[in-house]
Amino acid sequence: MGCELCSRLETPACMAVAATPRLRVVRVLDAPDFPAFYRVIWNAHVAEFSDLNDVDRAHAMDTVVTVERALRERLSPTKINLAALGNMVPHLHWHVIARFERDSHFPQPIWGTRQRDSDADALARIGLALPMVDERIAAALATS
Amino acid sequence: MGCELCSRLETPACMAVAATPRLRVVRVLDAPDFPAFYRVIWNAHVAEFSDLNDVDRAHAMDTVVTVERALRERLSPTKINLAALGNMVPHLHWHVIARFERDSHFPQPIWGTRQRDSDADALARIGLALPMVDERIAAALATS
Repeated sequence: MGCELCSRLETPACMAVAATPRLRVVRVLDAPDFPAFYRVIWNAHVAEFSDLNDVDRAHAMDTVVTVERALRERLSPTKINLAALGNMVPHLHWHVIARFERDSHFPQPIWGTRQRDSDADALARIGLALPMVDERIAAALATS
Repeated sequence: MGCELCSRLETPACMAVAATPRLRVVRVLDAPDFPAFYRVIWNAHVAEFSDLNDVDRAHAMDTVVTVERALRERLSPTKINLAALGNMVPHLHWHVIARFERDSHFPQPIWGTRQRDSDADALARIGLALPMVDERIAAALATS
């Protein structure tokens, strides 16, 4: 089928952070305005959240919450944005994105209209904290 | 605080569909390109999904899945889009949107760049089916 999320565990555009037998967490590297951007990718090729059974849905959302909490604890973002869209790649994956009041698009969704230039200092500060976010996610998934 | 989702159960821009003691489901009426657009709104004023405890998170996502399944069964959309953003109104709510291959923005998110004009006949067909989607959601929540 050529589904890019089936065929590759990690792509040049993202970095593996953690995994469980049923899913993986990656950090997105090709959205320079949004460095604190993770994806929770279900390993099996299903298109929709409602294709999962109750246990698997709970596992997916527990992992989304693990990523969300790591971002909140380390970065104190203005808001967390969660989305499962999949229009381009209909393979279930959740976007988990830390948003900040002065980021390039706030309060628009990251897919909306740019509001301002990104603040390079703010991006650098976030970038320095991301390895700790990664570690926290990996530690939480290892003990879950 | 003036949170618009706290202060009003129903607004001119949306229609009440169903409710449980902890949340309500509304159909969005002010997105003419996307008639099959529902919101699951948590009643208590919390900003983030991870502010909910395990039981409440499960209830929220079970309801999101109820809406998603009603949309899939009645409309066979190309894709379901789920999102909890809340940048404008930081009161927890989930968007559940049925997307179609030839809708105005597909495959872009509804917040992205318009791709084409909406097809009036397609919108009319969807509109005729929405009361059945509403009914199915209300019936499912009444028995859950």
